[in-house]
Amino acid sequence: MNVLDRLVVVVLAGGSGTRLWPRSRQALPKQFLDLTGQGTMLQETLRRLAPLAPPDRILVITNADYVDLVRDQVPELPPDHVVGEPLPRGTAAAVGLGAVLARHLRPDAIMASVHADHLILRPDRLRAALVASAEVADRGHLVTLGIKPTYPHTGLGYVEQGEALPSTSDGHQVFRVVKFTEKPNLSTAERFVADGRHSWNSGLFTWRVDRILAEFAAHMPELYAGLQVIAASLGTPEADATLQRVFPTLPHQTIDYGIMERAQDVAVLPVDIGWTDIGSWATLLEVLDGDSHGNVIRGDGTALTIDTHNSLIYTVAGRLVAAIGVKDLVIVDCDDALLICPKDRAQDVRRVVEELQRSGREAYLR
Amino acid sequence: MNVLDRLVVVVLAGGSGTRLWPRSRQALPKQFLDLTGQGTMLQETLRRLAPLAPPDRILVITNADYVDLVRDQVPELPPDHVVGEPLPRGTAAAVGLGAVLARHLRPDAIMASVHADHLILRPDRLRAALVASAEVADRGHLVTLGIKPTYPHTGLGYVEQGEALPSTSDGHQVFRVVKFTEKPNLSTAERFVADGRHSWNSGLFTWRVDRILAEFAAHMPELYAGLQVIAASLGTPEADATLQRVFPTLPHQTIDYGIMERAQDVAVLPVDIGWTDIGSWATLLEVLDGDSHGNVIRGDGTALTIDTHNSLIYTVAGRLVAAIGVKDLVIVDCDDALLICPKDRAQDVRRVVEELQRSGREAYLR
Repeated sequence: MNVLDRLVVVVLAGGSGTRLWPRSRQALPKQFLDLTGQGTMLQETLRRLAPLAPPDRILVITNADYVDLVRDQVPELPPDHVVGEPLPRGTAAAVGLGAVLARHLRPDAIMASVHADHLILRPDRLRAALVASAEVADRGHLVTLGIKPTYPHTGLGYVEQGEALPSTSDGHQVFRVVKFTEKPNLSTAERFVADGRHSWNSGLFTWRVDRILAEFAAHMPELYAGLQVIAASLGTPEADATLQRVFPTLPHQTIDYGIMERAQDVAVLPVDIGWTDIGSWATLLEVLDGDSHGNVIRGDGTALTIDTHNSLIYTVAGRLVAAIGVKDLVIVDCDDALLICPKDRAQDVRRVVEELQRSGREAYLR
Repeated sequence: MNVLDRLVVVVLAGGSGTRLWPRSRQALPKQFLDLTGQGTMLQETLRRLAPLAPPDRILVITNADYVDLVRDQVPELPPDHVVGEPLPRGTAAAVGLGAVLARHLRPDAIMASVHADHLILRPDRLRAALVASAEVADRGHLVTLGIKPTYPHTGLGYVEQGEALPSTSDGHQVFRVVKFTEKPNLSTAERFVADGRHSWNSGLFTWRVDRILAEFAAHMPELYAGLQVIAASLGTPEADATLQRVFPTLPHQTIDYGIMERAQDVAVLPVDIGWTDIGSWATLLEVLDGDSHGNVIRGDGTALTIDTHNSLIYTVAGRLVAAIGVKDLVIVDCDDALLICPKDRAQDVRRVVEELQRSGREAYLR
């Protein structure tokens, strides 16, 4: 039997960041935005996974507030495959919920956990890597896809590889993980980038559901107990009420800290899939295709550029953005707000968000 | 009798430029915009003249399309003091119409002709200069207020002064005008600025109506004949029909070329009134009061600036402009369009306008 027949994809779509303000809002976070002009992040995520698993083996875990939004954006999924967390409890609880739901779909499931708000420029390589990772997962490993670091990013986790494990049947190399390090300081990050033994932790995981649940039992027993209560209710009329009651009581933790840093038999499968978590608007300027002047122009409105170079312009329906003589600038327009900053200041969008909160102008964040 | 009792102010409010796009539109040109936060250019123009003449001695000549707009913005004027040109025929026809209307108000009128779209930072000095110019005009001179040139502007006309004429009773110096030069080339402009004998032609004129009409008779006889027909109809039921019929047939010419360059007894009264014709958005950044970072922020919306310096930001009601780390930038937001350019490229707004015309997107110009 092909391991792929057992693959259940769990898409985590509950995030609510502010790094892409003013487009990203509390009511419409990044995963629900069309940033590329080819569909929302969520839609693109599901589209690239479609060749690997049919809709009835895909689950989306999101915030309860976003359930309707997800069902609207991906109507091909069975409605009960879109599950809302009553309250956000971190990625450990989300992954654990995904695991019990996947096990309910099929007890021998191999689960791939992916994020709905990551950009992947080489979806064919992602699919190949997931197929390979399912093979490794079937051997009993918890597999993380490792991204070759291109610079000393201090906002990501790093995975250190140790001894080589047997390659997959399609030739992917696999290594035992020695250590996870969350968000290192700059000098540590520089050392990690230089040593060739570290990957960025993409948050893309593959494992057998029995294996990940065993790790929950071992390292997060309280969370595991709650998951067992939820699991017992699945398929009964009490399922939703149980989720509503139990989920908010689960410990709040990340999957990295709660499980991956402590688990047995963790493996890393280095990949080159054009991955980015879109840390700021500047990322989109780097990775999306630009025009002959290096401008990345997206959106439903009109842009008119004169002597404008290497700039990111998002337009909104019914409005015109005219830029003359600008360079390396981020211009993000939306219905009620506009952001303008040099690309190397794009991370300071958080300061705008803080100032809006501080000054009671949350309307521009909702 | 005080010459001021004979002063009739004619405000020219028919312009329709594109240099302040996207705020300035065909339906709402510069004179009708609130650029300073203290009222529209037209309202500011009338406010600064109010101490000199009561509303029944103020006339506004505008395009027929803007008559209602003028009456809305300056309800204190008698409605029949707002006169619409059926078609724009240049400043000679507008001034000539103003002269016959002023003569109809009082045959011994001293007429001051001012533009509704100029910014004047020292209104007290303007008023003093107009009082002085009325005294000079009463002697029979056509008086132009001369602006001391601060740089070799090639887009303005220059007035060369000759012999000194008797100063006014309040001590203003007055000179006979030797020559008008329209829009000189750069080297000529540089020479003019250096020689101390040239002023910018502000377009602010004062004269007795009998004197200016005599000059029309001498130098633009065809226009004068048309004005006489219009003048004869004033106060009769045929007045409006006559204006509608005759005005479009008048020669199309500027007052500078048609009259001032050829007239007798032209005098210049040098003034220091903080005058600017607002040639571009950059002008506003130069002349309006900024915040402690040199930012000039105006408009009915919200601006949020972080590490932003020496930039011009116009906001629009209901929208937020957030700028991070920008410098010397012009950001003009409005309901349907947004302009972004470095301040030293503000004159290239005309290229945006041309491109919108060329590409059939005139909706953004209307």
